[in-house]
Amino acid sequence: MNKPKRDRQFRPLPVPSVELYGIFGDRQDAICESTAETLLDRCVEAGMLRAIDTSQPGPGVVIPIQPWGGTTQMFWDSDLGKSIETVAYSLYRRPNPKLEARVDEIIDMYGKLQDADGYLNAWFQRVQPGRRWTNLRDHHELYCAGHLIEGAVAYYQATGKRKLLEIMCRYADYMIKVFGHGEGQIPGYCGHEEIELALVKLARVTGEKKYLDLAKYFIDERGTEPHFFTEEATRDGRDPANFIQKTYEYNQAHQPVREQKKVVGHAVRAMYLYSGMADIATEYSDDTLTTALETLWDDLTTKQMYITGGIGPAAANEGFTDYYDLPNETAYAETCASVGLVFWASRMLGRGPNRRYADIMEQALYNGAMAGISLDGRTFFYENPLESAGKHHRWIWHHCPCCPPNIARLLSSIGSYMYAVADDEIAVHLYGQSKAHFEIGGSKITLSQETRYPWDGAICFDVVTERPARFAVSLRIPEWANGVAIKVNGEALELSSVALDGYARIEREWKSGDHVDLNIPLAARSLFANPLVRQDAGRTALMRGPLVYCLEATDNGSGLNGIRLNGDVSKATTFEVAELRGAVALDLPARRDEADWGSALYRASPPHARETTARFVPYPFWDNRAPGEMLVWVRAGEERGE
Amino acid sequence: MNKPKRDRQFRPLPVPSVELYGIFGDRQDAICESTAETLLDRCVEAGMLRAIDTSQPGPGVVIPIQPWGGTTQMFWDSDLGKSIETVAYSLYRRPNPKLEARVDEIIDMYGKLQDADGYLNAWFQRVQPGRRWTNLRDHHELYCAGHLIEGAVAYYQATGKRKLLEIMCRYADYMIKVFGHGEGQIPGYCGHEEIELALVKLARVTGEKKYLDLAKYFIDERGTEPHFFTEEATRDGRDPANFIQKTYEYNQAHQPVREQKKVVGHAVRAMYLYSGMADIATEYSDDTLTTALETLWDDLTTKQMYITGGIGPAAANEGFTDYYDLPNETAYAETCASVGLVFWASRMLGRGPNRRYADIMEQALYNGAMAGISLDGRTFFYENPLESAGKHHRWIWHHCPCCPPNIARLLSSIGSYMYAVADDEIAVHLYGQSKAHFEIGGSKITLSQETRYPWDGAICFDVVTERPARFAVSLRIPEWANGVAIKVNGEALELSSVALDGYARIEREWKSGDHVDLNIPLAARSLFANPLVRQDAGRTALMRGPLVYCLEATDNGSGLNGIRLNGDVSKATTFEVAELRGAVALDLPARRDEADWGSALYRASPPHARETTARFVPYPFWDNRAPGEMLVWVRAGEERGE
Repeated sequence: MNKPKRDRQFRPLPVPSVELYGIFGDRQDAICESTAETLLDRCVEAGMLRAIDTSQPGPGVVIPIQPWGGTTQMFWDSDLGKSIETVAYSLYRRPNPKLEARVDEIIDMYGKLQDADGYLNAWFQRVQPGRRWTNLRDHHELYCAGHLIEGAVAYYQATGKRKLLEIMCRYADYMIKVFGHGEGQIPGYCGHEEIELALVKLARVTGEKKYLDLAKYFIDERGTEPHFFTEEATRDGRDPANFIQKTYEYNQAHQPVREQKKVVGHAVRAMYLYSGMADIATEYSDDTLTTALETLWDDLTTKQMYITGGIGPAAANEGFTDYYDLPNETAYAETCASVGLVFWASRMLGRGPNRRYADIMEQALYNGAMAGISLDGRTFFYENPLESAGKHHRWIWHHCPCCPPNIARLLSSIGSYMYAVADDEIAVHLYGQSKAHFEIGGSKITLSQETRYPWDGAICFDVVTERPARFAVSLRIPEWANGVAIKVNGEALELSSVALDGYARIEREWKSGDHVDLNIPLAARSLFANPLVRQDAGRTALMRGPLVYCLEATDNGSGLNGIRLNGDVSKATTFEVAELRGAVALDLPARRDEADWGSALYRASPPHARETTARFVPYPFWDNRAPGEMLVWVRAGEERGE
Repeated sequence: MNKPKRDRQFRPLPVPSVELYGIFGDRQDAICESTAETLLDRCVEAGMLRAIDTSQPGPGVVIPIQPWGGTTQMFWDSDLGKSIETVAYSLYRRPNPKLEARVDEIIDMYGKLQDADGYLNAWFQRVQPGRRWTNLRDHHELYCAGHLIEGAVAYYQATGKRKLLEIMCRYADYMIKVFGHGEGQIPGYCGHEEIELALVKLARVTGEKKYLDLAKYFIDERGTEPHFFTEEATRDGRDPANFIQKTYEYNQAHQPVREQKKVVGHAVRAMYLYSGMADIATEYSDDTLTTALETLWDDLTTKQMYITGGIGPAAANEGFTDYYDLPNETAYAETCASVGLVFWASRMLGRGPNRRYADIMEQALYNGAMAGISLDGRTFFYENPLESAGKHHRWIWHHCPCCPPNIARLLSSIGSYMYAVADDEIAVHLYGQSKAHFEIGGSKITLSQETRYPWDGAICFDVVTERPARFAVSLRIPEWANGVAIKVNGEALELSSVALDGYARIEREWKSGDHVDLNIPLAARSLFANPLVRQDAGRTALMRGPLVYCLEATDNGSGLNGIRLNGDVSKATTFEVAELRGAVALDLPARRDEADWGSALYRASPPHARETTARFVPYPFWDNRAPGEMLVWVRAGEERGE
């Protein structure tokens, strides 16, 4: 009875179909109030508008960015694309004619910039016009197109305005002519993946399968021999071996994608590729892609992921190193990479609900990703270390400003990650106070969540239907939760009878007034890392619900490594911190090394320790009060289980 | 009676005056057998001889270095200088006509290269002839001269050949004309200190005070206003603010040296400066310099020094960062910096024996410095981390090949660091089987040490004198030692009656046949870092005698962070490792996390631990057997002292 159909196709709810309150609503308000406008302002100040404005002289190779110093990168179309996307989502929530007018102006500029053949890339039209399609490996050319497409889709959905969408359709139509194995075509793909998932969005919004086919083409071609990047470099008079990143693993182009078993290279690129692959797997019911992705998923999540869902420990390649190499203080763990992991995870749910993906989606969303933006929506993290000696702080901007609009567009569209629908089922992947509107079998349905999650685990669902309708509601039962209970219209449900891939699948005829009570106990819990992670040996990390916790100097003073936990973590005292918008903090008994042991640097006896209370706050909320040290992996007390 | 004279001047014994056996003899044999020749070979292969050979075309700006890839630096004179110095010391121990002929050939080339005015610098004569004295801040010009002077002094002492010495005297005489505040003179000093200490050596071997005066001039000028580097850059048409290292702290030129209180900037530069300052303090009995140096000494050794005597944690500036910032796995801790610390420490002993300096000299020598060369003398470390995940290995060569000849010249001249003499006293700073020859009051004396130190703490001194002579023998009593006992001619000495600054000062009329038995118990001991060193929290390091110990994967398998010490370190079982030339290893009971906990990366229960034995070997001996992980700071077991 609870067996799902094979080859189901779940698609996320469109952003406007979900109303948000609670923690996500709060974040979206900050984006509406500050971030959306800030992003446009910073793009302007970075010279990006001048750069695409054909009424002004070309910008030259380097665009000064003021007042933050440094220069912008050649892929500023992508920054504009993601900023437009963020503004678009913000407009769903809160109309803002002034912001909308600013975006319209940018779109007009792009309209004027676009070549007659459909080509559109500010760098290669304004700075290096002779270099179009000469170095797909390094120059982010299709990556820029992808972000403009995502922006176009969102802006169309938000405003109904088709101009940017049509511009990007013309560009995509041109790409269809340019790429392929035919006479005069380029048998290539982009060194920085992104176009693939963007084309899927374009196909879904336009109903045009040709864009799906182009996305599939890019995915199928990647890493095949003879190698496109090598041939391209040779054709362009460059030495293919003189590749600063040394290996095509950097671009996930070292093997055909279906043969890849290890998550390697640049972390954001990897996440975007796998996201596109997952979309194509869903759209084409392509089991070969799904199988490859399942292997890659395990590889990432069991050997290469921080407990925050941060990924890519190294700055050198902005990506992956060795298995179990997860340094805390020097963690790169780019905000964009965790955002990308949320993208990938949500798309792995395209073929059906499975907490294997949704649990990680939640973990990466709440921690590695959400840490990347301040509570007021005005400052950002690029790197997300799990330990700081006190010098790591949020930036106003970054010379490579990819992260601020990335986390902003994710949070402002989070509703579509919470809910996904198939023909006869709605899956609730994430919890949070919200209302989702959707149709199943021709019936309009509203599903509401009333909850204080993630601060409290009680969640009440209310159903409103146009008319009674038979479908399934699938509710994720997080693997970390113990003692989860569900009642349907007040009647307890035997969880095991409805459990499927970590979801409670409740299939029935639903009618207005039906309600479901889900209770997910949120006790604080202590996590330990696999002993192969040398950096976490003898240490523990605290979680409560989906949130990783950390110590901050502002609560505990400096010298956080002097703290050793002591006692039963599940008995932590909880309370709300007003300064952190009601976030739940945890107090735990601990012992602490006394720092005053004189001037010696080394001595024969260990420091004395005294009893203390250690206060933990949610990791994504750190560096929102006074600056100072921060620590996730805390020295563990008495070891159990020996 | 035991009060020393004020303003004593201790000078190290000349290298040929000390015969070495035991551990240092073993290292010197490896240098005679391999390193000395290897250094010359590598210099030749790097194109350095071609570069100074006026019969060949100029080398161009970049000299390819084969077969190790990369390029050499502009300061190759210094590499040749240090290599000549190493060869010279090796010739004391073991005559080698072939090596000597090769050095003579290099000296002939330098003779031909030298300009009529005395100037000698291969880069500015062969590559950029118009740029002499235009950028003292960055271009290592006087640094190169300093190393050639040190080579010249050593080669003269080894062979009696004066040619290079005379070349360098001519150059130094020219410098005396060039530098100063007179009309047309340059009021400057070198951005990379070294010339200062070299001029002291030149003065001591030639008896010419003018070289001391020039060294003192460079030291007195450093960091004064108006700032020479700023004026020089302006004169040279460069923007003084466009200084890649950002601050003159990098060059210890941010303040006059007597006002400096913090050890900052590039670690090797700092050590060379302080060495030169200490020499000048001794030669001029300059208390203002000594006072500044004492402050700097405390700053370094109580806040910025690894337990190995490694210094300079950061690669970015090859130097110092914040107080107590001592990361283990990413430690830069350049071999040259520990060598430089030995230089400085030995010169702090110029005004009298004091274990405050000599203990650290021994610690840095045996650990941070000696680790830099393999037991066979053929491979080298540049960085000296205190933890390795298994990828840090000795190099055949380095694109900046400063370290190999630096550790080689230190070890091959170590006799002069062991003993220093004043008018009426000989200080024994370091122990090791050896014979020292010296004169006091016109009497020729031989002092022998019979010992297996550092493996065993029993040391027997035998005195042979031409005729009975009254003088003091000062023996260092290491601060770390407990239960030290001394007998003179079989009669126990009350240590407290002769103790002065951590030395037992035994003043008497010595005659042939006198002997002293010194016993320094060498129990393994556990050291803890100041809690302000966040990287070492909850961990302990083992030492025995002067040696820091470490775990290696070859003895313990991988996963060294899974090991937690357990039990009384002083009861460690000791035994000799034949593969490590009889080095004493330590076996200790420990508990070890079981690594096989399935595929999960994080879980709710800590790893199970089992009883095991952990085997420690001396840190400087690591990476001489199978490659693999290494760890100095091991998780501590039961904490005491709470």
